[in-house]
Amino acid sequence: MIYLDNAATTKPSETTLATYNKINAEEYYNPSASYSCAFSLSGKINEGRRDLINLLHGDENGSIIFTSGATESNNLAIFGSSSQKQKTYLFSMGEHPSVYNCAKELLNRGYRVDFIKLDRAGKVDLDDLKRKMTADVCFVSVMFVSNETGAINDLKKVREIIDDVNKNCLLHVDGVQGFGKIKINLLDNKIDLFSMSAHKIGGIKGVGALYVSSRARIKNIVFGGGQENNLRPGTVNGAGILSFVETAKECYKNMDKNYDFAQNLKQKLLTGLQNLNLNKLKIVSEESASPYVVSVLFEGNRGETLMRFLDSQGVLISTGSACSSSKVGNRILESMGYTKPQVMGAIRVSFWTENTADDVVTLVQNIKKYMAEINA
Amino acid sequence: MIYLDNAATTKPSETTLATYNKINAEEYYNPSASYSCAFSLSGKINEGRRDLINLLHGDENGSIIFTSGATESNNLAIFGSSSQKQKTYLFSMGEHPSVYNCAKELLNRGYRVDFIKLDRAGKVDLDDLKRKMTADVCFVSVMFVSNETGAINDLKKVREIIDDVNKNCLLHVDGVQGFGKIKINLLDNKIDLFSMSAHKIGGIKGVGALYVSSRARIKNIVFGGGQENNLRPGTVNGAGILSFVETAKECYKNMDKNYDFAQNLKQKLLTGLQNLNLNKLKIVSEESASPYVVSVLFEGNRGETLMRFLDSQGVLISTGSACSSSKVGNRILESMGYTKPQVMGAIRVSFWTENTADDVVTLVQNIKKYMAEINA
Repeated sequence: MIYLDNAATTKPSETTLATYNKINAEEYYNPSASYSCAFSLSGKINEGRRDLINLLHGDENGSIIFTSGATESNNLAIFGSSSQKQKTYLFSMGEHPSVYNCAKELLNRGYRVDFIKLDRAGKVDLDDLKRKMTADVCFVSVMFVSNETGAINDLKKVREIIDDVNKNCLLHVDGVQGFGKIKINLLDNKIDLFSMSAHKIGGIKGVGALYVSSRARIKNIVFGGGQENNLRPGTVNGAGILSFVETAKECYKNMDKNYDFAQNLKQKLLTGLQNLNLNKLKIVSEESASPYVVSVLFEGNRGETLMRFLDSQGVLISTGSACSSSKVGNRILESMGYTKPQVMGAIRVSFWTENTADDVVTLVQNIKKYMAEINA
Repeated sequence: MIYLDNAATTKPSETTLATYNKINAEEYYNPSASYSCAFSLSGKINEGRRDLINLLHGDENGSIIFTSGATESNNLAIFGSSSQKQKTYLFSMGEHPSVYNCAKELLNRGYRVDFIKLDRAGKVDLDDLKRKMTADVCFVSVMFVSNETGAINDLKKVREIIDDVNKNCLLHVDGVQGFGKIKINLLDNKIDLFSMSAHKIGGIKGVGALYVSSRARIKNIVFGGGQENNLRPGTVNGAGILSFVETAKECYKNMDKNYDFAQNLKQKLLTGLQNLNLNKLKIVSEESASPYVVSVLFEGNRGETLMRFLDSQGVLISTGSACSSSKVGNRILESMGYTKPQVMGAIRVSFWTENTADDVVTLVQNIKKYMAEINA
């Protein structure tokens, strides 16, 4: 089985599982309990918060709230900081459903919401942001790296455009596909809210985090015990959190090496596909995009049929994010200017450190086989 | 280390970790992906839903929504079914903070909310429920087993009182401390919403579920992808869910044996304490309460000081639930009619299958030692 759908989820790493199993065996306590070993565990979790802030070059006085995953982090970031119906909330059209559907819910609740267009490369259209960034905008949400195309947003420019109009405007960044893979400096870019997920970087599912700058004020959206500084109730998942922090540290340590590795895989894939001389091939992901996510389309073909064929050959890819794949069409690619028939031909290949160059060779060979079969 | 705080969390069982690690190694896929091995995993998760419904004798046409834990399950049950501000929502005074604080939030949002008193044994006061159960009540929330005292509510009677007035009224039961420990029949008792947690029965943290009867209509409270039938977005935690289901099945299989075992430990503890001839000992948990949670108080002493002493001797208990222990006082015991000074002397001892009779002997010896020291 060749697994090339790592943007959907990754296999938990050895580091992750070693830490996870160790904590479950030795420190399974409820970190909110009042005896010494629970305090000790709670202390380790707090160290983990500092570790994440350091990895992200965040505000030293900022905080990390551990959540059940990025969907919860995004919901907490958005609903936790929205209270002013006379203000405007801006979202890029490229956002993951866990941000985009929060934006639509804000609309339902009577908030003023607007969307920023994408450019042809899948990044937020900075001219459109300039037009829409008015003095009444109090919140902007632009993702770090697109889960559909790998497009990397220029968050420095995004922040500059915001600051030109309203320095107090909060900037939320869904960091899921960039965290642990591509360097970022939250403080320099004045990012106020940054969402993370463990299971996209070799962590386990069910663990995420939200970074909150010292100036951002958010409120809890779920009600219960006083955990996570009253912002996220529910028994604190010590084993999950500490395994996430260990894995994140490992990813940051190996970041350059991993990046080059993924870049080589991406290049190998694109060269391999171009060598097939398919005149209907379009490479959606631009060269400067994240090498971990590659989107290509075969005009006139159905990506879903190709995906099923590859599945039958033991090669797993996707036609888009698992969070949106059950829906017809693809909001992101259409926002980039692709037509519906083009979008139907799209596939997404996503890498992680467990992949090999041979995986890419096998993928390309099977795409060749498929194209030969359907054109026979 | 003797761990007697199992109502706060349990050590993950061997069954749990074996299943968890197996799925993470072999089926780490995103269950929402569109290839065959993801469908297979998704099928196993759906079987798990049927398994839980069967264990609970639930509505065959009902559903199970997997969540990040009982706090989320309770929030989803309550906010997911509240929409009518002209109706009344009733909550018992004995509820866990993840229910009680939802009730308070409903009040904040302008809903009509009322609370049902507790009797001296910590159960919901059925006469008070009768008084407050008027035709405009559309939702009642009464927990299965108290996390503070082990009191088991008579849910059959609760449902009868509700049905006498409004058969359409939804009944939500926070099942956390009874699930996997004490038999329940959801269908016979017309329970519409039932919250569960994995980590209170040897499962991992970060996994829970909400049972929803076929007649209950709830809406999602978090926004994102279409997972869990659009009711709970976020990548589905296959390993967490399947390990939870396995553990739940094991608990139901061994339920009578485990219950008798806990009952013996409880009896041993109470006899041991009574033999100390402390005239200030009051046993809060009644005989018919769940044997897994034992609350006693030593009038004129501080439970917290005793807890710290026991901690120093390697015996871990609590003064109350980890979710409320940081607050002064104890809403539950005060609602039962205990005075504040009495409540200050309370401790909670909670058992699980990993405990032994020797654990109880050591606990009692150390309480004796503590009492001798402070009275010296």
